[in-house]
Amino acid sequence: MPRVRSFLAVDWGTTNRRIYRIEDGQVVASARDELGVTAVEDFDAAVADIRAQFGDLPMLLAGMVGSNIGWKLAPYLPAPVDMARLAAGLLRIDARTAIVPGVSVVAESRADVMRGEEVQLLGAVAAALVPPDALLVQPGTHCKWAEMKNGAIARFTTAMTGELFALLRAHGLLAAQLGGDVTVNASFLDGVTEGQRRDLMASLFGIRAAGLLGLRDNKDAASYASGLLIGSDVAARLAEFSGETVHILAGPQLGALYVAAVEANGRAAVLADAEAAFIAGVLAMEGQLS
Amino acid sequence: MPRVRSFLAVDWGTTNRRIYRIEDGQVVASARDELGVTAVEDFDAAVADIRAQFGDLPMLLAGMVGSNIGWKLAPYLPAPVDMARLAAGLLRIDARTAIVPGVSVVAESRADVMRGEEVQLLGAVAAALVPPDALLVQPGTHCKWAEMKNGAIARFTTAMTGELFALLRAHGLLAAQLGGDVTVNASFLDGVTEGQRRDLMASLFGIRAAGLLGLRDNKDAASYASGLLIGSDVAARLAEFSGETVHILAGPQLGALYVAAVEANGRAAVLADAEAAFIAGVLAMEGQLS
Repeated sequence: MPRVRSFLAVDWGTTNRRIYRIEDGQVVASARDELGVTAVEDFDAAVADIRAQFGDLPMLLAGMVGSNIGWKLAPYLPAPVDMARLAAGLLRIDARTAIVPGVSVVAESRADVMRGEEVQLLGAVAAALVPPDALLVQPGTHCKWAEMKNGAIARFTTAMTGELFALLRAHGLLAAQLGGDVTVNASFLDGVTEGQRRDLMASLFGIRAAGLLGLRDNKDAASYASGLLIGSDVAARLAEFSGETVHILAGPQLGALYVAAVEANGRAAVLADAEAAFIAGVLAMEGQLS
Repeated sequence: MPRVRSFLAVDWGTTNRRIYRIEDGQVVASARDELGVTAVEDFDAAVADIRAQFGDLPMLLAGMVGSNIGWKLAPYLPAPVDMARLAAGLLRIDARTAIVPGVSVVAESRADVMRGEEVQLLGAVAAALVPPDALLVQPGTHCKWAEMKNGAIARFTTAMTGELFALLRAHGLLAAQLGGDVTVNASFLDGVTEGQRRDLMASLFGIRAAGLLGLRDNKDAASYASGLLIGSDVAARLAEFSGETVHILAGPQLGALYVAAVEANGRAAVLADAEAAFIAGVLAMEGQLS
């Protein structure tokens, strides 16, 4: 078995990035900053800066850096995509620098794309953090749900759950009510139940009405709204995908909300380490860097 | 039959208001301005200004002017509410000035409120613009759907359809795609069909994916998004309320979108004149002003 070399991996998103230096399969240095692709103009210089700081090593880049607002366009691979196909689809910038492609799916009337999440998903399988046939979710601004089959991303759906919550919290009728903390409490679970009705625009106005009629304290409205949005997402996805267990790739805070919503829908939920999944994903591909 | 006197009616909303002078059952003067309740500090002075401009007459006020951000709080009447109950519930400011109360409903887990729309709904029945048993919709920022029974508002649901469209158009991921005009075209009807899936947060992300994958021209994205939101609303409401015909109280532009979405869901749609309904509503109550 060839010795795993030292290399750099960058998870480079729209608004921030994470940089890892990996030696012998272990992360030996890492950093997170806000130099997402929208904050960078000269990517050659930005990549040289990373090497100056973390080591003059081969580099694997994933995420929006491969989009039309990033460095170079790494075209989407149509699903199903397994680790071998993903590695074969790397966009080579030079002999020791490559960008991971995104994945697309066109199912029925609806299309979907991911860019960056594919490394985590396939890495989670590669590291046996999840089974090769499993339903995975990556909560966040644009929540990804992926059905893995034989270790490949078979199909997936993105829901704008986090973005919609942020929009409602910042703008419009409900903003004044949604300033409170979000926790897994009775209001959150009431929201999850309401979300099962899959009637989001009416349920959202119900938050306003409940406030006006004094039926719910406004300090609980943010938890209710979060439960409503996450619950709508979970209910729609459990109707769309099979799987008795949902594997959640998330940190503890957002992870806890999805665990509660999945369990309230009668399914089992298991948290998996999203960062460990990403590292496993880049380790599985670094052999492609000459 | 007593002679119908001259009086003033004001439909006073959050951001604008409409003022009518009515003589012998006919509108003889009207105005629309942007002095909604959030733009007014001294309501006594604002009402005096209206009388100085339109005549020193009895006045009936409806809408947010009766809310906690308006002039005086006219408490909600719980549904069912017919014209007699609404008229009996007027909040009298003085002998010749009164505010119409709003209507509330608490059904299952969800509460709802209206304020101003009740005049149109009951006026539409009073003027025989719609039958006394009918499903009515008032499209807009907060779209109201009301089930009328024996001429009363039996129950109703508000969907944040228009507000959500405005939020998505102004902020966030989809804003750059949604600048185009909205018309009833093939993209609008595709959106209506997708809306029947009642999976809004995923369908919204599909707009982004279709743009990235070149599956839909961005000039058509606004029509698709409008169809998706209106279609979600229509599909949810036709599952909630009975009625083979939907009576739409709206102007021609928004009305045409709802007609198309209702017909695409296999029901008949009929437009009714929203202003005529409001005038009929205030005419039915003006006898309460001494």
